[in-house]
Amino acid sequence: MTPVTIIGSGSMGTALAEAFLKAGHPTTVWNRTPARATPLAAKGASHAEAVENAVAASPLVIACLTGYDATRQALGPAAAALTGRALVTLNSGSPAGAREMASWAVGQGARCLDGAIKNVPSAVGAPDTLLYYGGDPRVFAEHLATLRVMGGDTVHLGVEPDLAKLYEMAVGATLLPALVGFFQGAAAVQARGLEVSSMVRFSAKWLEMIISLLPGYAREIDSGAYSDPEASVNLFLAGIPYDEDLGREANIDVSWQAPLHDLLKRAVAAGHGEHSISALTELLKKPERAA
Amino acid sequence: MTPVTIIGSGSMGTALAEAFLKAGHPTTVWNRTPARATPLAAKGASHAEAVENAVAASPLVIACLTGYDATRQALGPAAAALTGRALVTLNSGSPAGAREMASWAVGQGARCLDGAIKNVPSAVGAPDTLLYYGGDPRVFAEHLATLRVMGGDTVHLGVEPDLAKLYEMAVGATLLPALVGFFQGAAAVQARGLEVSSMVRFSAKWLEMIISLLPGYAREIDSGAYSDPEASVNLFLAGIPYDEDLGREANIDVSWQAPLHDLLKRAVAAGHGEHSISALTELLKKPERAA
Ligand SMILES: NC(=O)c1ccc[n+]([C@@H]2O[C@H](COP(=O)([O-])OP(=O)(O)OC[C@H]3O[C@@H](n4cnc5c(N)ncnc54)[C@H](OP(=O)(O)O)[C@@H]3O)[C@@H](O)[C@H]2O)c1
Ligand SMILES: NC(=O)c1ccc[n+]([C@@H]2O[C@H](COP(=O)([O-])OP(=O)(O)OC[C@H]3O[C@@H](n4cnc5c(N)ncnc54)[C@H](OP(=O)(O)O)[C@@H]3O)[C@@H](O)[C@H]2O)c1
Repeated sequence: MTPVTIIGSGSMGTALAEAFLKAGHPTTVWNRTPARATPLAAKGASHAEAVENAVAASPLVIACLTGYDATRQALGPAAAALTGRALVTLNSGSPAGAREMASWAVGQGARCLDGAIKNVPSAVGAPDTLLYYGGDPRVFAEHLATLRVMGGDTVHLGVEPDLAKLYEMAVGATLLPALVGFFQGAAAVQARGLEVSSMVRFSAKWLEMIISLLPGYAREIDSGAYSDPEASVNLFLAGIPYDEDLGREANIDVSWQAPLHDLLKRAVAAGHGEHSISALTELLKKPERAA
Repeated sequence: MTPVTIIGSGSMGTALAEAFLKAGHPTTVWNRTPARATPLAAKGASHAEAVENAVAASPLVIACLTGYDATRQALGPAAAALTGRALVTLNSGSPAGAREMASWAVGQGARCLDGAIKNVPSAVGAPDTLLYYGGDPRVFAEHLATLRVMGGDTVHLGVEPDLAKLYEMAVGATLLPALVGFFQGAAAVQARGLEVSSMVRFSAKWLEMIISLLPGYAREIDSGAYSDPEASVNLFLAGIPYDEDLGREANIDVSWQAPLHDLLKRAVAAGHGEHSISALTELLKKPERAA
């Protein structure tokens, strides 16, 4: 059992440390505010007071802090101790942040993986919980069994250190817009005196339907072949007035959708009216700037 | 086997007629442009030339046209023939449109159901395909077995004639925003020379995760208790700069998200920063207008 150090005892760091303790790994924890790590010590973790000692305690160091700036600040005093260790960063951030982080840590002699955990803390350790990584493939191969303790669906995307952040952001871009769409529907149902819970089963089925459309859209975008649509841009455009009607009737602010409607109209102007809705992807690509 | 008339031989009307033919129901079809109904005649449907004859042919008449205006225009010449029949409208539209349609058809002596089919034409007839209805409960009870031919998951929402349109729009509001989020991610992945298809498995899993959050959000909204969040408004707000970074790096237009970010900021200003993201629902409700 590889000894593991978890830097950060926030909601996610705590869940990670608990998973390693449960799996029987010697586990060292460190947190800026030490009090937050005390419950983990009570569960059997070694609680390091100095971050240098935490890093020195294990060949595999996993950092799960707010972001790269926090991680860099936390690891600063432990830079020398990083030499020869495997460092796994599991915070959110941008691809650029991941590249800077890796180049700093590699400069300290660490071998780096940057990952993303695509679930809530309570899902840590489950067999189908997804974590994907970009970076040093030797770290991934060497520590795969240990990494799988955090989630059974553990994937290496490639050697570039920013791939997990790229995929995390690409994949994550559906979250806020889908939720606001759900909240708009919730407000409409509530305006009629109905329980929002009554629509959950239907919303779930609807999102399942959306999932089933993604492989087809991905193929259209990969091939640039938009002209044999299941659902056209014009079909989506035809639905806008109904939305506005319902907004008025239920006294809901639907104006957050204006840029989406504008996107549909610009797609039609660009000749995509009878093309697949996936042709909107082309509208989201900005023209290259002049050099 | 109840004889059934399908008004409209577009993509969806054709799929419906085919399902009834397959199930062995005597099936009559009518379409404004008769040529579009000819393939159905070849499969065993009676092809009525006059809409009056189509309506008169069956006790159960199902209309699947572009919208309520089209349905009203199509059925106009058949108004007298509607007396005593069950009329099921299955087009998209607004709740107000559904109410007007029902009140007109009831005025002609018809008994009405208005439904929504929450899937693509190729899913018609499958055991888990969802159709929900609002309106006359006797029509639903009498014709349930026949209605199930179009999809096994057939639900009566209540007696109000606009409930299916209300739920359809409430539930459907996730579609365009979720897709545009997916297309933004696709553009980011493509900007790195990677296949969009490589992200589909992760996007599917991510949407499954979103589905798992909905019951909790519905409970929060139903109870108005937002203060014990799994994910707070501030957590979402913290992610915005990463999105903007990636937009710049991948040369993608992420400006369609501006109203979503504005919503987050207004939620914080209203005291919801540490509340659940579902508190955005309150921001979408417009203040009641002065009388
Ligand atoms: N929670 C989730 O549902 C979830 C899901 C997927 C991914 N994630 C990601 O996991 C990461 C951690 O999230 P979390 O939920 O655990 O956050 P959290 O509960 O807010 O914890 C944040 C952690 O970062 C530490 N920290 C912040 N700034 C620091 C600094 N300058 N120096 C040292 N330590 C610092 C905090 O230490 P103190 O205790 O001293 O403040 C704490 O340990 C984030 O990147 C998040 O996006 C979270
Ligand atoms: N296709 C889908 O994926 C899908 C999924 C769920 C729900 N729906 C809903 O199902 C309904 C029908 O969709 P669809 O895909 O079948 O559309 P479609 O293929 O475009 O067919 C439209 C139908 O409406 C008829 N029509 C339009 N205006 C008319 C008028 N003024 N008078 C008489 N007939 C008129 C057309 O007749 P002509 O042939 O003479 O033009 C045609 O039969 C829509 O409300 C749609 O939202 C569709």
